[in-house]
Amino acid sequence: MKKALVLMSGGMDSTLCAAIAKSQDYELTGIHLNYGQKTQEREERAFNEICQYYSISEKVTVDVSYFSQFGGSSLTDEKLDVPKAELDSDKIPNSYVPFRNGNILAIAASYAEVIGAEALFLGAVQSDSSGYPDCRTEFIKAMEKAINLGTKPETNIKIIAPLVDMTKADIIKKSFELDSPLHLTWSCYQGSHKACGVCDSCALRLRGFKQAGFDDPIEYQ
Amino acid sequence: MKKALVLMSGGMDSTLCAAIAKSQDYELTGIHLNYGQKTQEREERAFNEICQYYSISEKVTVDVSYFSQFGGSSLTDEKLDVPKAELDSDKIPNSYVPFRNGNILAIAASYAEVIGAEALFLGAVQSDSSGYPDCRTEFIKAMEKAINLGTKPETNIKIIAPLVDMTKADIIKKSFELDSPLHLTWSCYQGSHKACGVCDSCALRLRGFKQAGFDDPIEYQ
Repeated sequence: MKKALVLMSGGMDSTLCAAIAKSQDYELTGIHLNYGQKTQEREERAFNEICQYYSISEKVTVDVSYFSQFGGSSLTDEKLDVPKAELDSDKIPNSYVPFRNGNILAIAASYAEVIGAEALFLGAVQSDSSGYPDCRTEFIKAMEKAINLGTKPETNIKIIAPLVDMTKADIIKKSFELDSPLHLTWSCYQGSHKACGVCDSCALRLRGFKQAGFDDPIEYQ
Repeated sequence: MKKALVLMSGGMDSTLCAAIAKSQDYELTGIHLNYGQKTQEREERAFNEICQYYSISEKVTVDVSYFSQFGGSSLTDEKLDVPKAELDSDKIPNSYVPFRNGNILAIAASYAEVIGAEALFLGAVQSDSSGYPDCRTEFIKAMEKAINLGTKPETNIKIIAPLVDMTKADIIKKSFELDSPLHLTWSCYQGSHKACGVCDSCALRLRGFKQAGFDDPIEYQ
């Protein structure tokens, strides 16, 4: 059985990636990153619950909290506030973590090479993302090339980003279609007991549910 | 003054990179990685002493010990022995850490973006390296492209690998020419009080000094 390593943040997008990989008959393995974000514990809980839902036993949580040493992002730097959403702005928001997906994909490539996974599923979204440069198809293709040149000759890793051209509404419709466990996912950047409903990530999620015509199964403040 | 971020392991190659960057009038900044290798503390001491030698104040040590969670390398996996050197073998030795340079460059790119460094110096050596796929020029060029696509539009980072076509003997000659502090560098993979003299890395170093016709200023067991 061909093996896929799914980058699983605990959010809706990467959980749909797991559902898609499963529907394509991959054996699922999971990798989750704690990068010093304020919602680290809550996201890891979501990751573990989603792995349980999909009976994923080969999984790893990686501490990459070095991101908070560098600063430069409101997600990892205590001195910067998480901004209220500005969904239609062209600017890169201060929640951008410098070259995060580059780091994430490099780490996942190392683990994929060790466990022999041939596909890496990444839930990057280009179209209605927040303008992060490391969510674009061009970047993903360039990184795939670098990974295959920088690993053993017998290692061939394909990066699959099935959501890259979807809107949040598309993602939610597809999640219902594939029985993705939306009720177990976590998106909020604030890390409260219930989701805040006002940060970038909550705003995108809520707008997506509204546009898709579904109710969000998680609780809000 | 243009700023360069130098990836500094504490070894001879990256120390020569710092010397070269300095000779090209860059302001030096340094990044050092602890990736769970057996010689971590000794290498970090070398890094700090070399930074002091070059009056580098903007520097960071990053914990990437997640490598040891993945296993697959004798450098980070306690269950695997560091092999005796086989310098003329074609095989990738078991000291290969899967996609290590991919991870290292991704991490350095994040920090470079935050501090505004325009050049990343990497001491990769292709010609007389141990056959690691992530030391090849092709890989480095592909990674540079991925980094520039995955960071902000105004971020432009050049990866400079000035040793890539040098032999160890060339590196040693150039180190003497540029007054690189060879006496502060550490290469051994075994992590003893004195260098072991028999691991891959010691064997390469010692052969290099012999070929260059210089004495190695460090002590061996």
